[in-house]
Amino acid sequence: MTEIEARKEAASRSARLDAVFAALADPTRRAIIERLSRSEARVTEVAEPFHMSLNAVSKHIRVLEASGVVERHRKGRDHILSINTRSLDEVDGWIEWMRCYWKERLDAMERLLRAQEGP
Amino acid sequence: MTEIEARKEAASRSARLDAVFAALADPTRRAIIERLSRSEARVTEVAEPFHMSLNAVSKHIRVLEASGVVERHRKGRDHILSINTRSLDEVDGWIEWMRCYWKERLDAMERLLRAQEGP
Repeated sequence: MTEIEARKEAASRSARLDAVFAALADPTRRAIIERLSRSEARVTEVAEPFHMSLNAVSKHIRVLEASGVVERHRKGRDHILSINTRSLDEVDGWIEWMRCYWKERLDAMERLLRAQEGP
Repeated sequence: MTEIEARKEAASRSARLDAVFAALADPTRRAIIERLSRSEARVTEVAEPFHMSLNAVSKHIRVLEASGVVERHRKGRDHILSINTRSLDEVDGWIEWMRCYWKERLDAMERLLRAQEGP
């Protein structure tokens, strides 16, 4: 990979993280993800438990599709929604990466405290 | 915990997740978290690598503080910023919870495929 390609890849990864985190920053959209994590479902099935119009739920679904978290395919006349687990893996990867840093710091602090306590 | 207390707790947990995910949906704010994950730092140190005004960086820092991801304490005349790892643990917990569901589904699909392949 050339340097320019690597920069483009980093930029598009960053843009994907922006979109996924923004998609997750809403309770209705998280509830839709929770529903689809159990099984794929038709749009009307996903919308049913929410006390809002189908149009309002559809807007949330479109945000989830644009972020790549939710995918849509057709089965006859039905639109079936499902989770794209890879998009959330990327988010999880970022948090995991941060966690490595903290863990190092916390371990270092623990060693320091133990050293101060003495034998 | 009474049912009302449990509902209040769930609502405030949901509001915290909204705020943390929204805070993470920006590349500058993620870069600030990455910086603070290595060590705590003064506001001016955090702002230094960014090609933007101190005022613009301060706005991002305030969003991070409001979400609970970043904490500020004073050391003499300096304002020191640090990460509150618990806020990101909660986000990580949510993703981990989703992951359990997918894993169950993926395992079930794998068992189904193996059964179809036969002995």
